Amino acid sequence: MSDAKNQEKDQYSTAGAYVHAGEEYTRDTTYIEDRVVADPETVELSERAQAWPVEAGRYRLVAARACPWANRTLIVRRLLGLEDAISLGLPGPTHDVRSWKFDLDPEGKDPVLGTERLQENYFKRFPDYPRGITVPAIVDIPTGEIVTNNFPQITEDFAKEWTEFHREGAPDLWPAELEDEMREVMKRVYTEVNNGVYRCGFAGSQEAYEKAYDRLWVAMDWLEERLADKRYLMGDHITEADVRLFTTLVRFDPVYYSHFKCSRQKLTELPNLWGYARDLFQTPGFGDTVDFQQIKEHYFIVHEDINPSQIVPVGPDLSNWMSEHGREKMGGSPFADGATAPGPVRSGEEVDPAHTPLS
Amino acid sequence: MSDAKNQEKDQYSTAGAYVHAGEEYTRDTTYIEDRVVADPETVELSERAQAWPVEAGRYRLVAARACPWANRTLIVRRLLGLEDAISLGLPGPTHDVRSWKFDLDPEGKDPVLGTERLQENYFKRFPDYPRGITVPAIVDIPTGEIVTNNFPQITEDFAKEWTEFHREGAPDLWPAELEDEMREVMKRVYTEVNNGVYRCGFAGSQEAYEKAYDRLWVAMDWLEERLADKRYLMGDHITEADVRLFTTLVRFDPVYYSHFKCSRQKLTELPNLWGYARDLFQTPGFGDTVDFQQIKEHYFIVHEDINPSQIVPVGPDLSNWMSEHGREKMGGSPFADGATAPGPVRSGEEVDPAHTPLS
Repeated sequence: MSDAKNQEKDQYSTAGAYVHAGEEYTRDTTYIEDRVVADPETVELSERAQAWPVEAGRYRLVAARACPWANRTLIVRRLLGLEDAISLGLPGPTHDVRSWKFDLDPEGKDPVLGTERLQENYFKRFPDYPRGITVPAIVDIPTGEIVTNNFPQITEDFAKEWTEFHREGAPDLWPAELEDEMREVMKRVYTEVNNGVYRCGFAGSQEAYEKAYDRLWVAMDWLEERLADKRYLMGDHITEADVRLFTTLVRFDPVYYSHFKCSRQKLTELPNLWGYARDLFQTPGFGDTVDFQQIKEHYFIVHEDINPSQIVPVGPDLSNWMSEHGREKMGGSPFADGATAPGPVRSGEEVDPAHTPLS
Repeated sequence: MSDAKNQEKDQYSTAGAYVHAGEEYTRDTTYIEDRVVADPETVELSERAQAWPVEAGRYRLVAARACPWANRTLIVRRLLGLEDAISLGLPGPTHDVRSWKFDLDPEGKDPVLGTERLQENYFKRFPDYPRGITVPAIVDIPTGEIVTNNFPQITEDFAKEWTEFHREGAPDLWPAELEDEMREVMKRVYTEVNNGVYRCGFAGSQEAYEKAYDRLWVAMDWLEERLADKRYLMGDHITEADVRLFTTLVRFDPVYYSHFKCSRQKLTELPNLWGYARDLFQTPGFGDTVDFQQIKEHYFIVHEDINPSQIVPVGPDLSNWMSEHGREKMGGSPFADGATAPGPVRSGEEVDPAHTPLS
């Protein structure tokens, strides 16, 4: 590496960004709470938030495949068939403190937004934006301004506000009769598992880590038991709750097990969760959004705090994701009567087959 | 941590000691080649090396449980029943650049040698000793001087030179008719596996790591196949070759899989090697020398280069080491006719039962 490059590397290094000595890891959960909704006049919003109208072609979803929160939006967009209505920008897997960049695109620029870094789209709207530049993000294409990065709301609004643009056969990911229980389950999955793995990985002390590890495994055991007699988290069919758990499970063995020291067992050693995760992975809309290589590169290269060598593991062997899961015998089906699986992945949005075994 | 403590920590930090950017990892294999032998007059020695006479009570074996090279000597000493003839000093699992210290002993001093750090015993003989202060080490008790740290020779000499002091029923770990093939197998195990895992873990570049990883797994596949129809590496009974492989296998899942990124599969996912490793672990003299907690603390705390947070994983679940291995059905037996298993572990040398599940 040249000196100039080294200097740039040092200036924007992420060292110190994730682990704070002696401290528990606490996620900054303040997001831009604007929403894109069917009827901006009547929607309830949090203070200071704005409503934007649903409109095909107007917004770009920016969602790095590497990121578990962004991965949710990729899955829901596919399941609901929103590809024509909402275009997709895909930042590369690695970044420095300036966050996500469009380095996989020609000339390093998003072909629609024309920006090199997602930061620019945040700054266009909030020149002094003080928090993390996160994905997923919805960007208003005409102005290039960020609309929202509030990931749980983004997928909920895809399901409930963008219905006009859903494909024929799109599943109902938020069945009204399950919603109360779903919210409870998703809350526990979020705090204990989705975020729980980060709490292990970015713990700033042995004590904080051990507390986080115990807390994670209480929840993993709860899920393993819950899935013993339920094909999916909420019963017979896939809901948003499954999407939210899946994106953590798919990263568990390649990343969280070792990089975040969540290593009581591998996912492959938890029979119900492993069968469940493969059942989802093999359902169109799930595995075909997962890029294992980008996932590994993201975590192992970006988190210099815990992997200063930035070396990316070759393992684990992931060919087993396509093995028989045997969950059909529990009954149920991915989609309820009347709903169908999404069709093939849109041209130009396919995952590199060298990165993820899909056959 | 107080400022004074922090200063001491920084001064003696191991940061930079293991990983060299851009480079492959190369082990310094220059050791003190003195030997302790039955007949010092006739033994063949390398240039500049000295021969010391076998003599009960004269030497102290210093062998940290954490260290795989030292672990070999703990096993062989037990198998051969040399506990009365050669006493044992046990440094703690962690150290800074000044290397192993007797911090588990009362007042932090080895009760026989009276030293706080093994370094002192090296310096007594070689005041400017320029290489690593390694275990296992044989120390001459009357003078407190290091005799040798040449680990492969130490266990070979235990077997061949200390015969006068072997227990009744001690196994022949170096059967003459197998010795040529054994040396070949042990050489490959050493370069590709024992040292191969370090080559992965301390690689200074992605390229060096990937080369090391491929090389390791070629050897692991060879071993997995070799053990498909052989109960032990050389056939029906345990030899020194098994001792040498075992100390790496027992560290594989707790350490090398994640810390050294050897993560194609866990040991538990390789049926022959996993059965074989448990067969040995459950044989007196093997598992009862293993301290999983010390092993994990050693690697994860000492190697700041690759684990700067020094957080020690709680996992993996190790209770499965005592599960049925099923290898008896291949025939063979740990020890040949006339040889017996060693008796109970000597009082004062037991592994903390909270550290290693042995029942």
